[in-house]
Amino acid sequence: MLVKPSILPGTMELLPHEQLIFNRMKDIIRETYELFSFLPIDTPALEKTEILLAKGGGETEKQIYNIANTSTETSLRFDLTVPLARYVSMHEHELKFPFKRYQIAKVYRGERNQKGRYREFYQCDCDIIGDEKLSKFYDAELVKIISIIFKKFGFDKFTIMINNRNIMNGFLKSQGVEDTVEAVRALDKYDKIGRDSLEELLLNQGIKTDSVKNIIDLIEFEGTNEETIAHLEGLGIDNEIFLKGLAEMKEVLENIKLFNVDKNNYKFTLKLQRGLDYYTSTVIETVLDDYKELGSVAGGGSYENLTQFYSKRELPGVGISIGLTRLFFQLSEKNILPKFESEEKSFLVAPLDIDMSYAISVLNELHELGAHSEVLYSKMKMKKIFDFAESYSFDYIIFLGQEELENKKLSVRDLKSKENISISIDELKTLIK
Amino acid sequence: MLVKPSILPGTMELLPHEQLIFNRMKDIIRETYELFSFLPIDTPALEKTEILLAKGGGETEKQIYNIANTSTETSLRFDLTVPLARYVSMHEHELKFPFKRYQIAKVYRGERNQKGRYREFYQCDCDIIGDEKLSKFYDAELVKIISIIFKKFGFDKFTIMINNRNIMNGFLKSQGVEDTVEAVRALDKYDKIGRDSLEELLLNQGIKTDSVKNIIDLIEFEGTNEETIAHLEGLGIDNEIFLKGLAEMKEVLENIKLFNVDKNNYKFTLKLQRGLDYYTSTVIETVLDDYKELGSVAGGGSYENLTQFYSKRELPGVGISIGLTRLFFQLSEKNILPKFESEEKSFLVAPLDIDMSYAISVLNELHELGAHSEVLYSKMKMKKIFDFAESYSFDYIIFLGQEELENKKLSVRDLKSKENISISIDELKTLIK
Repeated sequence: MLVKPSILPGTMELLPHEQLIFNRMKDIIRETYELFSFLPIDTPALEKTEILLAKGGGETEKQIYNIANTSTETSLRFDLTVPLARYVSMHEHELKFPFKRYQIAKVYRGERNQKGRYREFYQCDCDIIGDEKLSKFYDAELVKIISIIFKKFGFDKFTIMINNRNIMNGFLKSQGVEDTVEAVRALDKYDKIGRDSLEELLLNQGIKTDSVKNIIDLIEFEGTNEETIAHLEGLGIDNEIFLKGLAEMKEVLENIKLFNVDKNNYKFTLKLQRGLDYYTSTVIETVLDDYKELGSVAGGGSYENLTQFYSKRELPGVGISIGLTRLFFQLSEKNILPKFESEEKSFLVAPLDIDMSYAISVLNELHELGAHSEVLYSKMKMKKIFDFAESYSFDYIIFLGQEELENKKLSVRDLKSKENISISIDELKTLIK
Repeated sequence: MLVKPSILPGTMELLPHEQLIFNRMKDIIRETYELFSFLPIDTPALEKTEILLAKGGGETEKQIYNIANTSTETSLRFDLTVPLARYVSMHEHELKFPFKRYQIAKVYRGERNQKGRYREFYQCDCDIIGDEKLSKFYDAELVKIISIIFKKFGFDKFTIMINNRNIMNGFLKSQGVEDTVEAVRALDKYDKIGRDSLEELLLNQGIKTDSVKNIIDLIEFEGTNEETIAHLEGLGIDNEIFLKGLAEMKEVLENIKLFNVDKNNYKFTLKLQRGLDYYTSTVIETVLDDYKELGSVAGGGSYENLTQFYSKRELPGVGISIGLTRLFFQLSEKNILPKFESEEKSFLVAPLDIDMSYAISVLNELHELGAHSEVLYSKMKMKKIFDFAESYSFDYIIFLGQEELENKKLSVRDLKSKENISISIDELKTLIK
């Protein structure tokens, strides 16, 4: 009896030609993290459930995948941050701080089955963990990293939005708001519900009419980074948290300049609220300017204490994350996946009516030169050879027949230029890069 | 309340300096697979349980991890071959054959908790799937691939053992053995139990005394590849399966020669039995000559029909697998982990009593040159800077003080040669590669 082959809904599986693009994107992220000296870690996908739920259940507990048949309660990680916190706590005496680490791996969430919602997906995280304090230069580094990655993906028009949670928290305090978390949660809805409904929400929270007006005016403020800073300074707010946030934000913006990030690619915006129960200072979100409807394609922020649930030591952090599976899906839907020139030339060796030994000697030579290559060991019709080469994106076909064997030559078809050339084995290296 | 940070027994987690070696090994395997034009696929770790158990339960069913809270019965994959079979069956009309794919990913097994036994571990697989028939040149390619990988790991003394399951099956038939599977299962124990006990086992299976002697004599035969072939030919066995196996084996050995695999690195041996209910022709196992006690460090073989549980189409395959997590653990235990020269030079920029802007301009230049580098944004004592640099294996420290700033110079400490040099920013590129 045959079992119908299918995959679980909410998992992504690609055909090789798509997988190559996906992997190239993954490699670009990895290379960029490594360029900034982030070190790789690789935590298990299986963790003790008590570790994953140390913060307390809530949404996480509902979305976590539990393993049925283990003696120790075990679950699949739902993000890479909790494992990082556990890792740093376990190894705090073996690591040197600041500890810069990256991890690119799959995480698992019991999401409802919906298009573009994944139950298994790649997160690409990098974080810097400091000992007690952490420089605001790292926030700027992360902005630079996002800008490098998206430029390498082939996007020039994107905006890395930056804000600081202390600014709004302090401002709300200055307006007599008690429950800042609830208020910010309402502000986060501004884009969806508009000014009028937001006013109503805030009034319902018992915030005074004047204050509500001030608060919404603030998040509606639009200007250059310098104008936004000047506007905030001009408000004359004497709240400690507000002033701390403003100072931090100025510092981050100054630092980003030192990294030569293109001015069009980042923006201080008071509209940005995110990671309400998570980030404590800088927050970051990235949108593609021509595809804002995709939402944030890379984000992050800084947090006061990474390891609070596992260690007494205070270890603040700042990091970013790119949800690659979802990003890939979105770019694919919009038909704007990156087009990468293959960095290495690849060769398909097609022997025609000759013994294989000549073909394999050519293959050995190609491999010596480091060129991705393979021999078609089975006889194929000419059309099938071309189909095969095209399907797997080979750059060249090397035909070897009786004539080539006798003259120790190779007949090479350049599949891009559609040209045929005849060369010797020694000349192969001229085709490689 | 703090939760004690710990990981699930049977999962591997490394500190960064070990992780870098692990990753380099993983990259070597990936690069070698890609050199031979294997394409990447990335199947979900979560699969429908019915897919994973299509072959029938047995040992697999006991070892599989099931997800508790899903509406569709879901489990974690226990190998990469079943997902490959499912993938090929699902996409058989979109793929061109021969289909060469590799996958390097974690698999999950409910193993008993024991040192060196992993519940989550990396498999590094590459396979060639053919349409109806598959050339024996691929078997030779795989032997070449193993030899490249282990040489790149720094091992020269290893033996890739090769056998063909048809030889013993045919020979057993010629000796009147009915249940060849049961007999081979006994033969597989030869190394552990020795000749006398094996004789007993075979006699108990109802095999005649003369036949038992012939069978054990055969697996005890030792000689060069040519001598082993000659010995088999000299037996005058007229069994079709035996002759098929012998012809296949001769072909594979001839093919390996064409790939210029070092004669000391492969050996035809009749002792090798493996994958009894799985492989149908060539079987491969690799041992490190000086550490035979580690068992096989890379193995594989060919199988008649990959997709029999999911598709009516007959797709034979041949492949190899390297269990990287276990291999890493074993090499680490023996203190013979590969020592890799870092391919790229890395720089730690340490500003002393100066504003950060000069340091970041140096960092920007290093990144332009593609060099892994970071700046220490927090002040550290000299000893701590050196500890940090050593701990994370930086190649150079660049000290920047008032003097360096004024003269636009960099004071560079080469941590390998222990030399100090003074250079300009423009001269940085001379230090890179």
